Amino acid sequence: MNKSRLEAFTDAVVAIIITVMVMDLKRPQGGTLADLWALRGSFLVYLVSFATLAVYWHNHHHLLQVANTISGAVIWWNTLLLFLVSLFPFATAWVDGSLTAKAAEMGYGALMLAADVVWMCLTRALLRENGAQSPLARALAGSKRSRYSVGVILAGLAAGWFFPPAVLVCNLLSLVPWLLPDPHMEAQLRANAQH
Amino acid sequence: MNKSRLEAFTDAVVAIIITVMVMDLKRPQGGTLADLWALRGSFLVYLVSFATLAVYWHNHHHLLQVANTISGAVIWWNTLLLFLVSLFPFATAWVDGSLTAKAAEMGYGALMLAADVVWMCLTRALLRENGAQSPLARALAGSKRSRYSVGVILAGLAAGWFFPPAVLVCNLLSLVPWLLPDPHMEAQLRANAQH
Amino acid sequence: MNKSRLEAFTDAVVAIIITVMVMDLKRPQGGTLADLWALRGSFLVYLVSFATLAVYWHNHHHLLQVANTISGAVIWWNTLLLFLVSLFPFATAWVDGSLTAKAAEMGYGALMLAADVVWMCLTRALLRENGAQSPLARALAGSKRSRYSVGVILAGLAAGWFFPPAVLVCNLLSLVPWLLPDPHMEAQLRANAQH
Amino acid sequence: MNKSRLEAFTDAVVAIIITVMVMDLKRPQGGTLADLWALRGSFLVYLVSFATLAVYWHNHHHLLQVANTISGAVIWWNTLLLFLVSLFPFATAWVDGSLTAKAAEMGYGALMLAADVVWMCLTRALLRENGAQSPLARALAGSKRSRYSVGVILAGLAAGWFFPPAVLVCNLLSLVPWLLPDPHMEAQLRANAQH
Repeated sequence: MNKSRLEAFTDAVVAIIITVMVMDLKRPQGGTLADLWALRGSFLVYLVSFATLAVYWHNHHHLLQVANTISGAVIWWNTLLLFLVSLFPFATAWVDGSLTAKAAEMGYGALMLAADVVWMCLTRALLRENGAQSPLARALAGSKRSRYSVGVILAGLAAGWFFPPAVLVCNLLSLVPWLLPDPHMEAQLRANAQH
Repeated sequence: MNKSRLEAFTDAVVAIIITVMVMDLKRPQGGTLADLWALRGSFLVYLVSFATLAVYWHNHHHLLQVANTISGAVIWWNTLLLFLVSLFPFATAWVDGSLTAKAAEMGYGALMLAADVVWMCLTRALLRENGAQSPLARALAGSKRSRYSVGVILAGLAAGWFFPPAVLVCNLLSLVPWLLPDPHMEAQLRANAQH
Repeated sequence: MNKSRLEAFTDAVVAIIITVMVMDLKRPQGGTLADLWALRGSFLVYLVSFATLAVYWHNHHHLLQVANTISGAVIWWNTLLLFLVSLFPFATAWVDGSLTAKAAEMGYGALMLAADVVWMCLTRALLRENGAQSPLARALAGSKRSRYSVGVILAGLAAGWFFPPAVLVCNLLSLVPWLLPDPHMEAQLRANAQH
Repeated sequence: MNKSRLEAFTDAVVAIIITVMVMDLKRPQGGTLADLWALRGSFLVYLVSFATLAVYWHNHHHLLQVANTISGAVIWWNTLLLFLVSLFPFATAWVDGSLTAKAAEMGYGALMLAADVVWMCLTRALLRENGAQSPLARALAGSKRSRYSVGVILAGLAAGWFFPPAVLVCNLLSLVPWLLPDPHMEAQLRANAQH
C-alpha cells in the first residue's frame, strides 16, 4: 500500500492538533508583564504537550521512512493513534485548568500511556508486514526506548496518586531518550538513502 | 487529470474537520473524575463522528489508489462530499447538545445519508471515467457495502422517529463492514503494487 | 521554481479557511426543527462562501496544472490572494450577522472583487513567465470568465447600494461560468496528460 | 534524510497558524462602516503577523529547495522554529488588545527576535550538513538579510521602551529586504532547475 498518503494525513492531523492547542492559550487579561506571568502554568502545560507531539511526529517520520510497506493493520493502528492524539487538546485544557487535581493529571497520564501502547502496536504491525530481515527490523533491534517511556509514565501515574503534578513531570522525562538520535535507526536511514 | 492534488486537498479538509470537532469537546468544569464522567455523552458522539470520518478517509484512500484517472465530474462530486463532511462538526455539536431530541438526531442521520449517497455518486463517476475493464471496476465488483450502509442508516432514521438515539446507534453499525478489508479491493491493490 | 509546494501550501490554507468558516455556524439553540430553521440565513451565507472557495480551489488546480513554471511574482500574487482568502471567514461572519446591512454586504462584495482582481494579476504573472506559446496561453486564450465575474460582482455592488442582499446574490451568479468545464483548458489538460 | 516531509509538515503548521490568527479577528459589532473602522487596529496587527509568516514561509521554501540534504539538527531547529511560530497567534492577540502597552509590544518583538535567531541557527545547521561548496552555501554567500532583520527588531525593542508601537513598526520594516528576490538565491534556484 501507499505509505505517502498515510504520512501526509498523519502530518496534517498532528499539525492541526498542535495549533488547536495553542488556541487554548488565552490572551493575557491586560498589557503588563504580570498578566503574562499569570499564564505561566498554561505555558508549561502547552510546552509539554507540544514537545510530546513533536516527538511523536519525529519518530513517525523516521519509522515510516525506514519501512518499505504498510498493511491494513498499520492503517488502523495509525488511525487509533490519531484518535488518541486528537484528544490531547482536551486533556491539555483539562490539566491546564487544574494543575494539582488528581483526576485531571491522571487522565493526562493515562492518555499518554494509551498513546505509547498504541505506538508499540503500530511498530509491531509494521515489523510483521516488513519482516524480520527488513531494514525496519534492523533499525528497531534492541531499542528499549518505548519500554523506558512506558515505565516512566507508569511511575508518574503511581507518584501522581500522592502528588498529582508528578504525572506532568514524568511525562516530560519520558521524552528525553527520543530527543537523541538512535544509532540503529540513523544507520538504516543512511543505508536507505544510499540505495 | 492529476489525482494527487485531489487526494491532498481531501486529506487536508478531513484532517481539519476531525480536529475542529475535538474543539467542541468542552473541558471538564472541575478537576474530578465526576466532571469527566459528566461529558460521557459528548465523548460518545465525538467517537461516532471520528469513526465515520476515519472510515471515509480510509475508503477514499483505497478508492483513489485503485483509480487510474479522474474527471471533472469526480472533482465536483468530491467537492460536494467535502461540503457535507464540513457540516459534520455542526451536526455533531447539535446532536451532542440534544442526544434525545428527534430533530437533532434525524438531522445527524440525514447528513450521514446524504454523504453516503454522494459517495455512491463519486464511485460511479470514477467507474465511468476508468471503464468497465479497469482495476477499479474489478475492485468494486460485487461490493454491497454502500448499499448495506444506506440501508442501516435508513433503518436508523425510521427507528429514530420513535426512539431518537437509534439514529446514532445505527450510524455506528453502518460502519462495521468498512472496518474489515474488502478482498476484491485488497487483491487489486496488491496487483497494482506489483506493476 | 517548484510549483508543487506552492500548490500544497495554497491547498492547506484554502482547506483550513473553509473549515474555519464552518466553525462560525453556531449550533442550534435547542433540539427542534424550528431551531435549525432559525439558522437558514447563516447556512445560505456559508454555502455562498464555500462555493466561492471551492471554485477558487478548482481553478487554481487547473491553472497550475497547465503552467510549466512559476516566478517570484507568481508566489507574491498567490500570497496576496491567500491573504484576501484568509479574510473570507471574517467577511462571512460580518454579513451573516447583518444580512441586510449595506456596509457588511458591500464589504463582502468588495472582498470578492479584490480577490477576483488579484486572481487576474496572478493569471497574468503566470502567462508572462510561461510565454505566449505555452500550453497555459493556449488554455486561457479567449477566456472571458474573469471579466464576466468582475462585471457581475460590480453590478452587485451597484445594486447593493439600494438593496444590500443583491451583493450576495450577484456573487453566487458570478460563480456560474466557473462550474462548467472550459473547453480550451480541458483540451490542454488532456494534451499535457499525453506527454 | 527526506526533506519533503519536513517541508510538508512546516507548510501545514504555518498554514494553520495563519488561519488561526484570522479567527481572532472578531466580527464587527454591527453592520455599519463605523463598526468596521473600529477594528482598524486589529487589522493592522493581523496584517503584520500575516506578512511575517508569509515571509517565513517564502524563505523556508527557497532555503529547502536549494538544500540537498537535511540532518537531525535541522529537524530540531525547525521544530523549535515551529514552536515559536505557534506562539504568534498568542502574541498577536495580546498586542491586538493592548496596542500601546509596553509589555505586550515588547513580548511581540521578543518573539520575533527569537524566531529570527532560531532561523539563523536553522540556516547554519543546513550549511553544516550541505558543506561549504554546496549550492546552498553559494546561495547564502554574502547575504546580510538575517543580520539586518535582527538589527531592526533590536532597534524596535529599544525604541519600544519609550514608545511601545515602535516595535510593530520596526517589525514591519524588518521584512522589507525579504520581499525582494535575492540575486544569489535566484541564481542557484535557476541552476538547480537546469540539472
